[in-house]
Amino acid sequence: MTDFAAWSRAIQARTEHFLSGLLPVATIAPEQLHDAMRYATLGGGKRVRPMLAHAAGAAVGADPARVDYAAASVELIHVYSLTHDDLPCMDDDDLRRGKPTCHVAYDEATALLVGDALQSLAFEVLAHPAAAGDTSVQVEMLRLLARASGSRGMAGGQAVDLAATGHSLDLAELEFMHIHKTGALIQAAVLLGALAGGALDGATRAGLERYARCIGLAFQVMDDVLDAETDTATLGKTAGKDAAQGKATYLTLMNVKEARAYAHELLADALAAIAPFGTLAQRLADIARFIVERNY
Amino acid sequence: MTDFAAWSRAIQARTEHFLSGLLPVATIAPEQLHDAMRYATLGGGKRVRPMLAHAAGAAVGADPARVDYAAASVELIHVYSLTHDDLPCMDDDDLRRGKPTCHVAYDEATALLVGDALQSLAFEVLAHPAAAGDTSVQVEMLRLLARASGSRGMAGGQAVDLAATGHSLDLAELEFMHIHKTGALIQAAVLLGALAGGALDGATRAGLERYARCIGLAFQVMDDVLDAETDTATLGKTAGKDAAQGKATYLTLMNVKEARAYAHELLADALAAIAPFGTLAQRLADIARFIVERNY
Repeated sequence: MTDFAAWSRAIQARTEHFLSGLLPVATIAPEQLHDAMRYATLGGGKRVRPMLAHAAGAAVGADPARVDYAAASVELIHVYSLTHDDLPCMDDDDLRRGKPTCHVAYDEATALLVGDALQSLAFEVLAHPAAAGDTSVQVEMLRLLARASGSRGMAGGQAVDLAATGHSLDLAELEFMHIHKTGALIQAAVLLGALAGGALDGATRAGLERYARCIGLAFQVMDDVLDAETDTATLGKTAGKDAAQGKATYLTLMNVKEARAYAHELLADALAAIAPFGTLAQRLADIARFIVERNY
Repeated sequence: MTDFAAWSRAIQARTEHFLSGLLPVATIAPEQLHDAMRYATLGGGKRVRPMLAHAAGAAVGADPARVDYAAASVELIHVYSLTHDDLPCMDDDDLRRGKPTCHVAYDEATALLVGDALQSLAFEVLAHPAAAGDTSVQVEMLRLLARASGSRGMAGGQAVDLAATGHSLDLAELEFMHIHKTGALIQAAVLLGALAGGALDGATRAGLERYARCIGLAFQVMDDVLDAETDTATLGKTAGKDAAQGKATYLTLMNVKEARAYAHELLADALAAIAPFGTLAQRLADIARFIVERNY
């Protein structure tokens, strides 16, 4: 785990540096918007999606310098969604990554435009000439990111989440929501990281998709556990908020012990899916274990 | 002009049909989001940007079936920006295209997600295999749309517009704002429509860019004139709103007669820019004249 801790810190630093180079500096007009885009994106975040992209790239031997673009594009979509999700008309949250949320630090209109512009930037980054070696694969990557972000992916999951607030969901409905809300982008991170190395054969792609589906759900199960068990300072965002807002979580369907056991089942399935990659999949395996064993 | 009126109605009908086929039907989950996306996009709109894409495609001999994707992608970005621009934290407008705005007909959270998902859909559409004949041109098209939409394009122009409310701007500052807020996407419509036919040589591209810059500004000059002179029913959106909100417009810098004269100067420059295309540029010329001579 020490080795993985060092690797993950290296990817976090690499991602921070790469994103900082992509985001327009705050001295370019419109200055306040660019300042706010940097505020929302830099200086924090676990960078789980960039880690997944780099780990999947390593599993297929992709050039890390290409994977940087895929990793950044998915992280920008993630940050845009957090920025919009925190707005008063959505979750109305004041704290994110231990800092005031974007609409608190700036204002609502700026936070709205920050999210909008970060989404555009995500596609601009993935359309960069250095993001892929083959333009037909690159177009496929852009289409994949667009689908994962849209109404049949992340934005659709947000809509289901909103509609579900105050209602009870069964396990199938809850997983439908999570597969869209967080799972689609996690899968995009894994696939885009691998596609940065070139086209994928059917078996490779299917293995990565199964891995991504399992860890996406495990991530959400553990998020619900941690939201219920951890204090705000450790979490870096407002704790206990989901329950207070009447949101459906795994803990309305099972107790903490059962939820942790379910996360471990998903972990085993994820590890089985990437077994064919052998030692090249070590970082994918590390991340899967980290997701289930983390405490923040 | 009768001929142009028939052509523009044909493009409007073609765009409506194409967008309707692209947008998920409202019986696919999340149903309310898909219903709201269709509400915001279909059944109205002048479709100026799709007209520009098809007219530019015609100028270079592009296949209209490819141009449909470029035209739809730009229109989806436009509709997303209108949906977000109407939100209470932005312009707070209740009426758009003669109907209640999306957040009035649904709710704020839904309107936010509608805009977000329409932006994703725009990139998904432009990344469709049928949107271009050559994937290296297609990647360039996707990058161009992303830049035109982001913080150094449309979203950046919105930010400048917000910051300028209640302040006086000089002509250079006002044009900087419009070149970003509306000009970037108008230029994207023209260039993407032409790129749907394949790569462009430098002179062709420069001519189309100059044409687009001139008609983009002329469009805004006439918008300001019409906003001041026309009643709400004819306009299909709340009239006189810009002046009431203390927004900088051309009419704070010149009178209506001078503004109309300026629009005609821009029209002459736009027509000069496309003269080398000869009769193939007829529709581009028609649109430029329409923009300056319209009364709604």
